[in-house]
Amino acid sequence: MSSDQAKAHTHEIDFRYEPLPADRERVRRLVAATSFFRDDEVAVAVELVEERLAKGPASGYEFVFADVDGAVAGYACYGPIACTVWSYDLFWIAVDPAYQGHGLGRALIAESERLIRDAGGRRIYIETSGKPLYVSTRGFYERCGYVFDVEIAEFYGPGDSKVVYVKELA
Amino acid sequence: MSSDQAKAHTHEIDFRYEPLPADRERVRRLVAATSFFRDDEVAVAVELVEERLAKGPASGYEFVFADVDGAVAGYACYGPIACTVWSYDLFWIAVDPAYQGHGLGRALIAESERLIRDAGGRRIYIETSGKPLYVSTRGFYERCGYVFDVEIAEFYGPGDSKVVYVKELA
Repeated sequence: MSSDQAKAHTHEIDFRYEPLPADRERVRRLVAATSFFRDDEVAVAVELVEERLAKGPASGYEFVFADVDGAVAGYACYGPIACTVWSYDLFWIAVDPAYQGHGLGRALIAESERLIRDAGGRRIYIETSGKPLYVSTRGFYERCGYVFDVEIAEFYGPGDSKVVYVKELA
Repeated sequence: MSSDQAKAHTHEIDFRYEPLPADRERVRRLVAATSFFRDDEVAVAVELVEERLAKGPASGYEFVFADVDGAVAGYACYGPIACTVWSYDLFWIAVDPAYQGHGLGRALIAESERLIRDAGGRRIYIETSGKPLYVSTRGFYERCGYVFDVEIAEFYGPGDSKVVYVKELA
């Protein structure tokens, strides 16, 4: 897609940073709708929302919700990595299939990066699976400027490695 | 030290698996007494105890306390890694300086491994710093059968890498 198209689409996005109680169910539906995550992974996504609702910033989880026409079209969840001075994890990024292909994922990453930089973060890590299912995911991260860092064999399960990407913020 | 000596010492250890409210302060003192951790790291150690006290097993943090003559001489904290089927993190292991050099660290690791194996875990990860300060720590992990897996440059801070060790349980 051209950058003009992306602009036209991202124009209508409202970013929101504080989850609402209703986001537990919205996030569950959205993450499940991507057909990309196991049930236990969907449960973890919802747990992070609940942690933030219960504890606020002390939870260590920060959110960017992309509200489009009153619905949550996608969201990202990130947070500082404890015991590091400048590293952040991007835990989740998911876009509703109905809104995919319009630059929304890229906009969510860019907005997360802006907030992380403002908070003093300098390195962002993304962890994903080395399985073939995730080839397009890894391609997306690479197009967003994330660089392969290390691979940890057998991490997620038999034959399922963890691949770690990193982006150094300017 | 000979294995007979280790046995003589570990004889008097009582393992305990559920933190008590008083362990918040005991852990804070113990971890600070090792002179090995920054204040923010000490705070994280205490937070994990608090999480377990507040949420029980749902916290994801499991503990092994080594009580010797009514005092906490050392402890380990581990937990299953979310979204993996068989991987565990060993988050903390600390031994009071007054009790170091008697095989207590090794006994805490062995007891944690036994519990992880019983719970279905097959891989245990330990993350530590690549800094020279941690040479003896890494040597200890290696003597306990942990193998260097990957190193993530600049992770903790400028010039401070994360080194990941792994042990595959038989």
